[in-house]
Amino acid sequence: MKAGYHNMAGTDSTAAYAAPPDAPAIILVRPQLAENIGMVARAMLNCGLTDLRLVAPRDGWPNQRAVAPSSGADQVIAAARLYDTAAEAVADLQRIYAATARPRDMVLDEVTPRQAAQEVRALADGGGRSGYLFGGEAMGLNNDDVALGDAILAVPLNPAFCSLNLAQAVLTAAYEWFQAGRDDAPERRAVWPKETRPATKAELLGFFAQLEDALDASGFLHVQEKRPIMVRNLRNIFQRASLTEQEIRALRGVVTSLTLYPRD
Amino acid sequence: MKAGYHNMAGTDSTAAYAAPPDAPAIILVRPQLAENIGMVARAMLNCGLTDLRLVAPRDGWPNQRAVAPSSGADQVIAAARLYDTAAEAVADLQRIYAATARPRDMVLDEVTPRQAAQEVRALADGGGRSGYLFGGEAMGLNNDDVALGDAILAVPLNPAFCSLNLAQAVLTAAYEWFQAGRDDAPERRAVWPKETRPATKAELLGFFAQLEDALDASGFLHVQEKRPIMVRNLRNIFQRASLTEQEIRALRGVVTSLTLYPRD
Repeated sequence: MKAGYHNMAGTDSTAAYAAPPDAPAIILVRPQLAENIGMVARAMLNCGLTDLRLVAPRDGWPNQRAVAPSSGADQVIAAARLYDTAAEAVADLQRIYAATARPRDMVLDEVTPRQAAQEVRALADGGGRSGYLFGGEAMGLNNDDVALGDAILAVPLNPAFCSLNLAQAVLTAAYEWFQAGRDDAPERRAVWPKETRPATKAELLGFFAQLEDALDASGFLHVQEKRPIMVRNLRNIFQRASLTEQEIRALRGVVTSLTLYPRD
Repeated sequence: MKAGYHNMAGTDSTAAYAAPPDAPAIILVRPQLAENIGMVARAMLNCGLTDLRLVAPRDGWPNQRAVAPSSGADQVIAAARLYDTAAEAVADLQRIYAATARPRDMVLDEVTPRQAAQEVRALADGGGRSGYLFGGEAMGLNNDDVALGDAILAVPLNPAFCSLNLAQAVLTAAYEWFQAGRDDAPERRAVWPKETRPATKAELLGFFAQLEDALDASGFLHVQEKRPIMVRNLRNIFQRASLTEQEIRALRGVVTSLTLYPRD
């Protein structure tokens, strides 16, 4: 069998494949069937990805029922990490693609898996890491999950029949990432200035916490029914800007300074 | 739900999708599980393909066990045609891609799904039709099947783990065919909610003036040599976010509110 090419009947070595450290993570938010998690693991390893993160999987984790459907992607299953919230699962990543239909009330760029793959590779060239966020089988991502995203991941498909299963949705993202890394892949460019780096999601969430604490104290968010949507809309503005670590520090300084505004 | 884009949780209309008459056929040679045939049908219809041909399926055809896994791709299941031999199944087609590892004793070009998609589209422009030939789950294609092919279809994958399941192998071919037919893959595009509109530059500059006045008063911009670059860097953050008129108003509210932060 020719190495590197698809062979439906072939057996694979499952020992010790090491993904590049800047390869993207796959985050499954509230997945239901462990079998589907196993199929996701297989699709990931097919495309050279190994960083699987599970947020509150319905049937618990580790789960033996994921193993057979992974068809030998044991290393992905074994290394999968468990989180309580999507925010924790993405904290160390710099750019998140949320696989969902377009939310009605948020402004987010929409990219195809192919465009996302170019951006993920470009970010990696600048030292950053990305993640793809997928919702569970029945409900998909909720608005709070989507608000963690820098862009919507939308797979162009037959408009008359566009529902993909979870493993196949992951496959389109992972497949494009793998293809974008091949030697004959089109050119791409790094987008970050050398003197800084993309902020991590933890840094971004730290800024959000500071801003929202200040706005709670100053009364801006005092209408409790409106607070969630106001917070989401504000976060969305800064998500879209793809902030650097330096810019996060500047914005934190702005908030602190404004709270010290002189009064008479 | 936005038509044409992936939505894992969405329902689809299954009525009467008509594929272009020159769309390629998918031929499964000695497939085993009817469930996998159903999953192939789903992947096909996701990508706008409907011509499914089955050569000697192990468990007979029609087969009720294909229906549920097709997740509503009933029209593909219902229209699937049955053949005794692969040669009969491809008789009316002009170009065949055989999905297999490269045979040792045949000279055949090897193409990726992306290259094949370009060729299939080009052939269709000239009035010809293509087919993709896939073997059964256990044994794949035999040499006689492969000999029907004009080229080998080889999916570039992780060399350490390159075994795809049948439906995912079909998905890579069908997905690339669909992508190749889209009008120029658009640049990353922003989508605006209906109830708002992109801000004018005057609105943006009005916000900048308010923010910078407040920061002058609060002392943040007091180092005169640094002021121009600090202002530019802050403006750049909000420029990049492509703000809406609504968001400008929200940000103006944030600045005003923060300057009223309670003190003791």
